[in-house]
Amino acid sequence: MGRVGKQTIVFKNPPVISCAYSSVGPKEAAGPLSTYFDHSYEDELLGQDTWEKAESKLIENTIQGLLTRSGKNPTDIEFIFAGDLENQIVASTFGVSSFNIPYFGLYGACSTMGESLCLASMAIGGGMAQTVIAGTSSHYCAAEKQFRYPLEYAGQRTLTQQWTVTGSGYVLVTHGGKGPQVEAITPGKIVDLGISDTFNMGAAMAPAAIDTIVTHLEDTGRRPCDFDAIITGDLGNCGVDIAITLAHKLGYDLKGILNDCGKMIFDNEKQDTHSGGSGCGCSASVFTGYLYKQLLEGKLKRILLVPTGALMSPTSGFQGNTIPGIAHAVSIVMK
Amino acid sequence: MGRVGKQTIVFKNPPVISCAYSSVGPKEAAGPLSTYFDHSYEDELLGQDTWEKAESKLIENTIQGLLTRSGKNPTDIEFIFAGDLENQIVASTFGVSSFNIPYFGLYGACSTMGESLCLASMAIGGGMAQTVIAGTSSHYCAAEKQFRYPLEYAGQRTLTQQWTVTGSGYVLVTHGGKGPQVEAITPGKIVDLGISDTFNMGAAMAPAAIDTIVTHLEDTGRRPCDFDAIITGDLGNCGVDIAITLAHKLGYDLKGILNDCGKMIFDNEKQDTHSGGSGCGCSASVFTGYLYKQLLEGKLKRILLVPTGALMSPTSGFQGNTIPGIAHAVSIVMK
Repeated sequence: MGRVGKQTIVFKNPPVISCAYSSVGPKEAAGPLSTYFDHSYEDELLGQDTWEKAESKLIENTIQGLLTRSGKNPTDIEFIFAGDLENQIVASTFGVSSFNIPYFGLYGACSTMGESLCLASMAIGGGMAQTVIAGTSSHYCAAEKQFRYPLEYAGQRTLTQQWTVTGSGYVLVTHGGKGPQVEAITPGKIVDLGISDTFNMGAAMAPAAIDTIVTHLEDTGRRPCDFDAIITGDLGNCGVDIAITLAHKLGYDLKGILNDCGKMIFDNEKQDTHSGGSGCGCSASVFTGYLYKQLLEGKLKRILLVPTGALMSPTSGFQGNTIPGIAHAVSIVMK
Repeated sequence: MGRVGKQTIVFKNPPVISCAYSSVGPKEAAGPLSTYFDHSYEDELLGQDTWEKAESKLIENTIQGLLTRSGKNPTDIEFIFAGDLENQIVASTFGVSSFNIPYFGLYGACSTMGESLCLASMAIGGGMAQTVIAGTSSHYCAAEKQFRYPLEYAGQRTLTQQWTVTGSGYVLVTHGGKGPQVEAITPGKIVDLGISDTFNMGAAMAPAAIDTIVTHLEDTGRRPCDFDAIITGDLGNCGVDIAITLAHKLGYDLKGILNDCGKMIFDNEKQDTHSGGSGCGCSASVFTGYLYKQLLEGKLKRILLVPTGALMSPTSGFQGNTIPGIAHAVSIVMK
């Protein structure tokens, strides 16, 4: 293992993503990836009395699903790396607390699946642990209420706007075992090109995605065609177009290689989601639900997963700040 | 290096805290540790137009102070581990962004200095990096506005209440070099005994602090007297008393050994801070300002630093949730 180039770690003993579990809400379950998700809920409240408690329940059930599928007990897990979009990431706090696992709370906005996968891989790759859990979540209703308008207000949505996914994905990362391997990671820097339109997150995140993807390619000496797919988190339709244009200016042709979890999870025309899906739960549920299974079955051999995040808050927006972006790249191979 | 006991990592090649830098506001600079802080500001706004931007400026200046003191450039730093109390940790986003360092955003409430030190030590100890930065901050005015009342409301403070520190502390953690070494870490679990009084954080966090301290002692086979001091983050006067009582019930006498950054940073009687200091910046500035220098000078040989956090949000409080606590222990030795 070791550092390669500017900011990439290549693992000598690649950590293994030996199990994955995904849970989504009703709208996600009605989308194109419907049959791939491990569990879906018809009731977006999951029987709780608030959206925030519903998100915690979603996390708890997803982690329990992962433990059951992998045959592990909470005492087998050394650390859990988790985060979400709610203020003070309380969805994760209340979602993970009953398992009594040493906990690292993360905030990387919608890039959190990438952040948790990077840190889990570093813990395993560096011999600091044998068995850890990483994951994240988001909930449409909790996020809308906190970041934009109360649902009851029924605000008009712009065409560049995305739909926060109600979903959660958690993975078991282990030293050894069977499954897709994390061969390298490129943790991202904050990139801020001055976008301040909170209804166009794709534009805010695209420069960060390309910065991380190009750095990963340069650090490892790989070309885009060395991957079956390069998959960003939630740039959405608008953001993907911007990302492809930015990459082209830097001499990289990502057309036909770059896809995006936010584009994949909804049928934008039928489901009226405008620019696509977003939220921590978007890349988390698409990776654990769909991509992981494609890797397991050998339909995808090597992917670069690049969850993307917009690091603003409502307060920072009101105070006239820009929306800095970040993206973390995880190179995953099935051998 | 390796895992010891239930949840402790002992480093074979201990990471070195080779530099530290602290910055505080005017109230902290008027307290008992006045002469130890590396920089203090008379203007709590730091020349900015909002409290939130002031906290970002405080972070930026603290990191710049650390880089200048250590003779490092931002390009020498492989990762930065940082977080704060603001929604979506935007203080850290805007505080670290200008340095262009790959960034892991953390949320551990007031335990964040412990969380960042644990993750930085794991990155270095596992050979994943050679030079990283870890740290955190808080700002009294930004925190009061967000978690309690606007300052202009001039709400009465209860006697169990603590005063959020305006302060920031960042450290350089390296593979090799001179300085105090991180010999072991015990990342904490979430502990929730049902406290729901947001004006008594010490009571909410004390059970987590004792859970982590006792686990560390049991995992390593050490006794409290093996440390010159065991120092929690911000239990404050009320919380420390509860912690000592809880430890006593478990067979550990922490009297005379347990101290708390929240007790140390203010003169509660003269400065009217009631139960003491709190906030991520409390343990961060007391460690980097005071404890680090005591270690460097050999006045302290071995300490167990245990930053403590209360993992609630205003929303979770309004919805009737309890206040779960967490604490991460970092065993630091000067050889």
